[in-house]
Amino acid sequence: MKAMIELLFMSLEVENSPIGRFFNPRSIAVIGSFREGYFGGYVIVRSLLKAGYEGAIFPVNPGYREVCGIKVSASLRDIPGKADVAVIMINARSVLPILKECADQGIRSVVVVSDGFAERDEEGARLQAEMVSLARSLDLRIIGPNTAGVVNTANGFNPCPYEAGYYKLGQGVTAVCAQTGMINPQAFPYPDMRFGVSKICDFGNKCDVDECDMLEYLAEDGKTEVISMYLESIRNGPRFLNLARRVATRKPVLVLKAGRTAEGAKASESHTGSLAVDDRIFDAACFQSGILRLERFRDIFDMPKIFAGQALPPGNRVGILTVTGGVAVMAIDECAKQGLCVAKLGGRQAKALEELFVGLGKNPVDVGPMMAAVPKAFDLYPTILSTILGDDNVDALFTVLWATPAGNVISRYVETYEGLKGRFKKPVVTWIYGPDGGAAAELGKRLELCGFPVFDTPEKCIRALGLAYRYKRYTARGKTA
Amino acid sequence: MKAMIELLFMSLEVENSPIGRFFNPRSIAVIGSFREGYFGGYVIVRSLLKAGYEGAIFPVNPGYREVCGIKVSASLRDIPGKADVAVIMINARSVLPILKECADQGIRSVVVVSDGFAERDEEGARLQAEMVSLARSLDLRIIGPNTAGVVNTANGFNPCPYEAGYYKLGQGVTAVCAQTGMINPQAFPYPDMRFGVSKICDFGNKCDVDECDMLEYLAEDGKTEVISMYLESIRNGPRFLNLARRVATRKPVLVLKAGRTAEGAKASESHTGSLAVDDRIFDAACFQSGILRLERFRDIFDMPKIFAGQALPPGNRVGILTVTGGVAVMAIDECAKQGLCVAKLGGRQAKALEELFVGLGKNPVDVGPMMAAVPKAFDLYPTILSTILGDDNVDALFTVLWATPAGNVISRYVETYEGLKGRFKKPVVTWIYGPDGGAAAELGKRLELCGFPVFDTPEKCIRALGLAYRYKRYTARGKTA
Repeated sequence: MKAMIELLFMSLEVENSPIGRFFNPRSIAVIGSFREGYFGGYVIVRSLLKAGYEGAIFPVNPGYREVCGIKVSASLRDIPGKADVAVIMINARSVLPILKECADQGIRSVVVVSDGFAERDEEGARLQAEMVSLARSLDLRIIGPNTAGVVNTANGFNPCPYEAGYYKLGQGVTAVCAQTGMINPQAFPYPDMRFGVSKICDFGNKCDVDECDMLEYLAEDGKTEVISMYLESIRNGPRFLNLARRVATRKPVLVLKAGRTAEGAKASESHTGSLAVDDRIFDAACFQSGILRLERFRDIFDMPKIFAGQALPPGNRVGILTVTGGVAVMAIDECAKQGLCVAKLGGRQAKALEELFVGLGKNPVDVGPMMAAVPKAFDLYPTILSTILGDDNVDALFTVLWATPAGNVISRYVETYEGLKGRFKKPVVTWIYGPDGGAAAELGKRLELCGFPVFDTPEKCIRALGLAYRYKRYTARGKTA
Repeated sequence: MKAMIELLFMSLEVENSPIGRFFNPRSIAVIGSFREGYFGGYVIVRSLLKAGYEGAIFPVNPGYREVCGIKVSASLRDIPGKADVAVIMINARSVLPILKECADQGIRSVVVVSDGFAERDEEGARLQAEMVSLARSLDLRIIGPNTAGVVNTANGFNPCPYEAGYYKLGQGVTAVCAQTGMINPQAFPYPDMRFGVSKICDFGNKCDVDECDMLEYLAEDGKTEVISMYLESIRNGPRFLNLARRVATRKPVLVLKAGRTAEGAKASESHTGSLAVDDRIFDAACFQSGILRLERFRDIFDMPKIFAGQALPPGNRVGILTVTGGVAVMAIDECAKQGLCVAKLGGRQAKALEELFVGLGKNPVDVGPMMAAVPKAFDLYPTILSTILGDDNVDALFTVLWATPAGNVISRYVETYEGLKGRFKKPVVTWIYGPDGGAAAELGKRLELCGFPVFDTPEKCIRALGLAYRYKRYTARGKTA
């Protein structure tokens, strides 16, 4: 009981922290235009209502009287209550006076959606610097400017300023933060992606709240188990390094760093007005601090899946169960790149598999010939999977499934996977192929509902296992140090 | 007229070549089981009928009388006609006697689907060697064994031995050949992939017909403009190199080489029983012979699109038109990796764009702020695209489109692209994102119908441009040599 109260108290403390307030406001003031359209204050109010946000919403604009059935106040002074957070999307030059009004009304957390700051030109950069000074003097925290804002899936707080056409996102254990709005609801169909999130934060120009603030907050956030970030720059290298080292012992921190090349770094300057860090320094920092570095944009959404509910691999020996030899060869190439190796099956397991069907008793285990030759081959799938996963010489499993259009194949696979659940403390990653795109998607969805991640290329499956193994080594290092 | 007759004659000659016959048989004998199911002779006959193959089909098996309304002959001697091609899928040990019968009946092209040869064990390898000797003595050509066979989309010749659930594939200009059945209809939903093919060939164990034979044939094949291959081994290095060098001056040859690592090479041995070539030697050979090397499995299907209907870039300077700065930074990183650079707009073009909207006059051209600020921003899209593509400082264009759920956005984009068609001799690659997966897919489909390739990640767009630029350099080298 005492522990529970402490936990509750801690959780309240986190939510009431300066950063926590951005995600857990009891009320929000929206300062912008309420003209109906695809962008602006109107979209924010509508999105909050449709996402089921239960806090108070205070629209502010002297030129409107009502939006979505809510009274619009002429100024922040006139709102009928106290706002925890303000979202501002007005002309850049008008933002600073509003910040003063926010402070006057006791608002300490402000999301500045407006663009036209450091990403625009030197004048915008000066304005941004002025805004930062003002915020410091007023004891305000700012996310942005030039941001698509934040989302908290736990409380329906989705003040997305761009029309997405959907408003509720699946709850999950991954927090996604980025120096781009390409992670916010208007950019991707989260509900179709089989990817649940806890929090989303677009840092925008990152004039104040940055990757360190978010790492600190997310480390304590009870809803977040994995942190996935896209960064173009690191504000404070040593602080980030120290923080990440500490956070990574508790939660995997995945980082995609853009601006890796000199050309890209220069471009990031004009995108979010931030200076990039030397890529080699960042690489070394990642290694030291347990940060798992991502390679491609989609990784931000794909790779966290391996850490959401899967056990970490005890070692780097991969079992491969496939219907096609070609994919096994490609997977083995990728294993070598990722520091993984192909498991050699134990004698007892090899013998047991060989007895099921001649040729099965070696890794990669290719069930292709068996599937074509044995009418009831499907009945053997659970035994084959358990035999490989039960082998102490196998630390992780990559399976390739063929989603045929045939009758009950999907259900048979799902039953087989359900039978594995919780039995083996090893990660299982799956790639599905087949002539029927719908069947493959359906099988993927059902396996993920069942807790097993499915990736859309064989290479991604192996890369995910590589990240899991690297993370396992980092946490083990922490424990023995 | 004379030229036309010559062309017709040449085309007939190609189709009647030993390899050409595999794709253009006037008749086919199918030797296997005709039990209804998901694999076997029954599936082949059904697939041929459903794909609209108009040649004669001769099923052969003493144990059946009829399949899909076609009389089954007891032996090859009894078929009511002459077969150009035989497809065999019976027990490995029974294949050799059938080969003799094939030769007796004047069949010179045989597809051996049966497995249990070199990929199985030493005994299988001996049997395979014996089969090769026999075929040589009988003057037969063999595709396989352990193959999923061939497809020709031009004549409905789709004798796929595995049930795919669909039978007609979209006609296109790309030939796909592989040492794996992962390219045949049962592996992927070709009709959904917006990827038309001319020919498909799974080499299987590649005991006879190999990459060189196919290169030679496809070089002359009038339906094929791009050749995409997956190889685990190269049978005859010098011959392949010489051939590729010659073919690549006329058609792009894209190769994914598996077994790149020592571990992968070892695995490919047990997959198709073939020994892999040292990866560094292969890399050097690719460079010398104009082969465009692929990196990942999906590349086999994705990358040919850049060569199907797009002009080659005159140089390596890339224009970037985006709605989001983050993607531009990632694209620039990828450009640097691919030997491309970010174009610097010409003075006149920069000025023209700047006059449309402040900040537009530099590459990457980010229309994000304009889209949010200008109500009729869409009207400016055609002008912006033409301005960038009309700039002599820009050799290729990468565009990022946001498929919003808003009314007629998709049609507007399509109209804009239609307006570009044939006007600029520069490749345009597109990445589409947005909150509505269906809208993005619909827009992608319509742009590709319009002739502009769409890739599913920003990185793939740039990699495709990189390949096009490399190919351009190779062909230019050929011309100046």
